[in-house]
Amino acid sequence: MDAGAPSAGILVIGDEILSGRTKDRNVGYIADVLTNAGVELREVRIVGDDEAAIVAALDALRHAYTYVFTTGGIGPTHDDITADAVGRAFGRPVDVDPRARAVLEAHYARTDRELNAARLRMARMPQGAELIDNPVSGAPGFRIGNVFVMAGVPAIMQAMMGALLPQLEGGARVMSETVEVSVGEGDIAEGLGELATRHRGVALGSYPFHDGQRFRTRIVARSRDAAALAKARADMEALARAHDLKEDDAMKRTA
Amino acid sequence: MDAGAPSAGILVIGDEILSGRTKDRNVGYIADVLTNAGVELREVRIVGDDEAAIVAALDALRHAYTYVFTTGGIGPTHDDITADAVGRAFGRPVDVDPRARAVLEAHYARTDRELNAARLRMARMPQGAELIDNPVSGAPGFRIGNVFVMAGVPAIMQAMMGALLPQLEGGARVMSETVEVSVGEGDIAEGLGELATRHRGVALGSYPFHDGQRFRTRIVARSRDAAALAKARADMEALARAHDLKEDDAMKRTA
Repeated sequence: MDAGAPSAGILVIGDEILSGRTKDRNVGYIADVLTNAGVELREVRIVGDDEAAIVAALDALRHAYTYVFTTGGIGPTHDDITADAVGRAFGRPVDVDPRARAVLEAHYARTDRELNAARLRMARMPQGAELIDNPVSGAPGFRIGNVFVMAGVPAIMQAMMGALLPQLEGGARVMSETVEVSVGEGDIAEGLGELATRHRGVALGSYPFHDGQRFRTRIVARSRDAAALAKARADMEALARAHDLKEDDAMKRTA
Repeated sequence: MDAGAPSAGILVIGDEILSGRTKDRNVGYIADVLTNAGVELREVRIVGDDEAAIVAALDALRHAYTYVFTTGGIGPTHDDITADAVGRAFGRPVDVDPRARAVLEAHYARTDRELNAARLRMARMPQGAELIDNPVSGAPGFRIGNVFVMAGVPAIMQAMMGALLPQLEGGARVMSETVEVSVGEGDIAEGLGELATRHRGVALGSYPFHDGQRFRTRIVARSRDAAALAKARADMEALARAHDLKEDDAMKRTA
């Protein structure tokens, strides 16, 4: 964790995620984009289509982090209440935005569908909001203060994320180094703990996986400091070599 | 939402989820299991390997919902701090549990790996906790109060979820009905809104999808009341028929 880096929270909105009917694919995507941009994702919350729940979560996140990204609840149906909840959180009236309306009119003029009252709801946003471009399906997202309000459909959310990215102030990019060890996590835990103590400016994680035959572990070091990362990598390789040698030995003995 | 049904929150713990390195697959799984068991998932939070963040999220969730399920942070390495954080939240000392230790001893005696100090950390839990069986890799999860603490590795979490399921008090099972309409969400939004007003005991959702040629919509009704659900389905079918007829007509005109 870097106290100086910009931070972020994500708020996923939708009953369909909580019921299990739809599996969220947005958190992982946004996490990747933020990590690459040097913004540190600190917290994610998922709530249903309930105004009080949305407002409470949004207020907690927007006061705690540099940026907040919401997904879901900005479609045309009765249960799409994100714009109203965001307006409530910011104490701003919510109405059809003339710029958003123009975008929708232009979009639907090119299709065989009509801009009816339900679709026009997608132009509603809090006063003072800025539009986020939606090259996929027209209806824009919006930004108000440090909150970016995006669609829940992954293809649309991804396009919106691309559109808003230049607005983010990124920190130094986090780099990572990975070393694989041919033993389980429990075998390297002690050595890894020592390594973590020795390399304070580097975040060390271990990720066990099963290669079909046995448990192995990937050790990952992350830092914004290239020199510190290189030093950690050298120690990680030494740790891996020590265990791989022990392992070769054990295999010879059991062979 | 049913005020009488048991409710739940999920707390996912791990820096690797927030960095995007690991994509969470546990929330969707637990959501499905809870829905099938008649427990209503109301909120999910994801936080990093940070004791203060874990304690704050856990306290918020455990006081708000009937059950809380945590995943992640109970492995053998230095950054696995979930047991300590849970102990802190409940104000209970955390130490190696003799029952958990016996489970680990028996498990590792059957493998070629040793129960070293790092692996023994996996037997640490708050005083008064009950073990959750882990048929996959030995190291048990635990329950304390209304909080179930599980591993983050999906296969292990799923096994633990199966083991603890009989302890949950389920509500009436939520049933659902789905009707497909051959038009976009915006075309049925108004009709759907009216339907939602007419069927108060039924939760109505709409899910747009693209079939490769055009946007279509699935309307889903959910309720614990079979009779109310059947009435809603009849109206949903009438709505779908009305739009599909209009659609056939439009296709004839453009043909």
